[in-house]
Amino acid sequence: MLSQAFAGEHAPASEAVLNTLLRDARTHNAWLPKPVPDHTLRELYDLVRWGPTSANAQPARFVFLTTEEAKRRLLPALSEGNREKTATAPVVTLIAWDTEFYEYLPRVFPQKDLRGAFAGKPALIEETGLRNSSLQAGYFILAARALGLDCGPMSGFDAAKVNAEFFPDGKWKINLICNLGYGDPAGIFPRNPRLNFDEACRIL
Amino acid sequence: MLSQAFAGEHAPASEAVLNTLLRDARTHNAWLPKPVPDHTLRELYDLVRWGPTSANAQPARFVFLTTEEAKRRLLPALSEGNREKTATAPVVTLIAWDTEFYEYLPRVFPQKDLRGAFAGKPALIEETGLRNSSLQAGYFILAARALGLDCGPMSGFDAAKVNAEFFPDGKWKINLICNLGYGDPAGIFPRNPRLNFDEACRIL
Repeated sequence: MLSQAFAGEHAPASEAVLNTLLRDARTHNAWLPKPVPDHTLRELYDLVRWGPTSANAQPARFVFLTTEEAKRRLLPALSEGNREKTATAPVVTLIAWDTEFYEYLPRVFPQKDLRGAFAGKPALIEETGLRNSSLQAGYFILAARALGLDCGPMSGFDAAKVNAEFFPDGKWKINLICNLGYGDPAGIFPRNPRLNFDEACRIL
Repeated sequence: MLSQAFAGEHAPASEAVLNTLLRDARTHNAWLPKPVPDHTLRELYDLVRWGPTSANAQPARFVFLTTEEAKRRLLPALSEGNREKTATAPVVTLIAWDTEFYEYLPRVFPQKDLRGAFAGKPALIEETGLRNSSLQAGYFILAARALGLDCGPMSGFDAAKVNAEFFPDGKWKINLICNLGYGDPAGIFPRNPRLNFDEACRIL
């Protein structure tokens, strides 16, 4: 059966969905006492993985901290203001990237062996890994919202400490962190303004 | 009226929406003869801008190339395989980032003047700009799909040439490029495999 996307044109999402994904969605700082089961994390990754990346390289790696013990290992690396909301989040996701992502290319991009384009080029590896794992983090946040979850993304932490604690062999590197759960609206801050079209965009 | 998100719990999106956003969505290389009007680009940015970024810094800038003349300026900077699909796309989006994004912080993050955290720190500016504009590119791709558009993102181009042609003053820098339109399913390549949960994820 042809899917909607393959059929050439697909219907726009409803206003309610656009609100859930972006317009009304907020960064959460407090959490309702409702757990996020492991199967929801698997469902989330099974959405995120279909997002496009350069040469299908998929450098992002997701470490879900679900136990008190695992979360406790992270707290000393966080900036003061990020500790409480992270300690109380049902799931804390370390969104990292694999510095050896290109070793998977023969399988995930079989059209051409692109390993040689990356091997031994640390600046290109770093730029490609950071760009594409961040793209995937964007998919992750919107996919989580589409599944009914709320997110609390942050980059206020000591990356060297996170890497030393969770990725001591240096193969994976932290990019950003995203708390997951069902948000308590009482913990939402007032919304800050966004740039206008004419500040952020041009039409040529 | 309280929105769904503010009400604490919001309903998951339908399977059809999850398919449109990620599961069935594909990178497009050929385009139906259906234009993308300017008001759709404004509607798209008005979704994208609500996505979260670090300290609400919103470093991404979007340059929509809609005329033949504007697209023609880009083609020499693209890798061979990206030219035809870009020349024929209804809209080509240069997703760039503003190297002076932190100058907006007093307005977009009024809680604390964070300009000093960035000014004169080119490595931190670069990392923050690349991470957050890539996150916003992830929002851009899924928001475009949610509006019924198809995307053709790419990073196969000569960034120095793109910057010299479109951003000669050096204030904005190209990150990636995304074609937009209504995709012709005849131009879709076979789908490449994605990493499994156990390869890309851990639960601790």
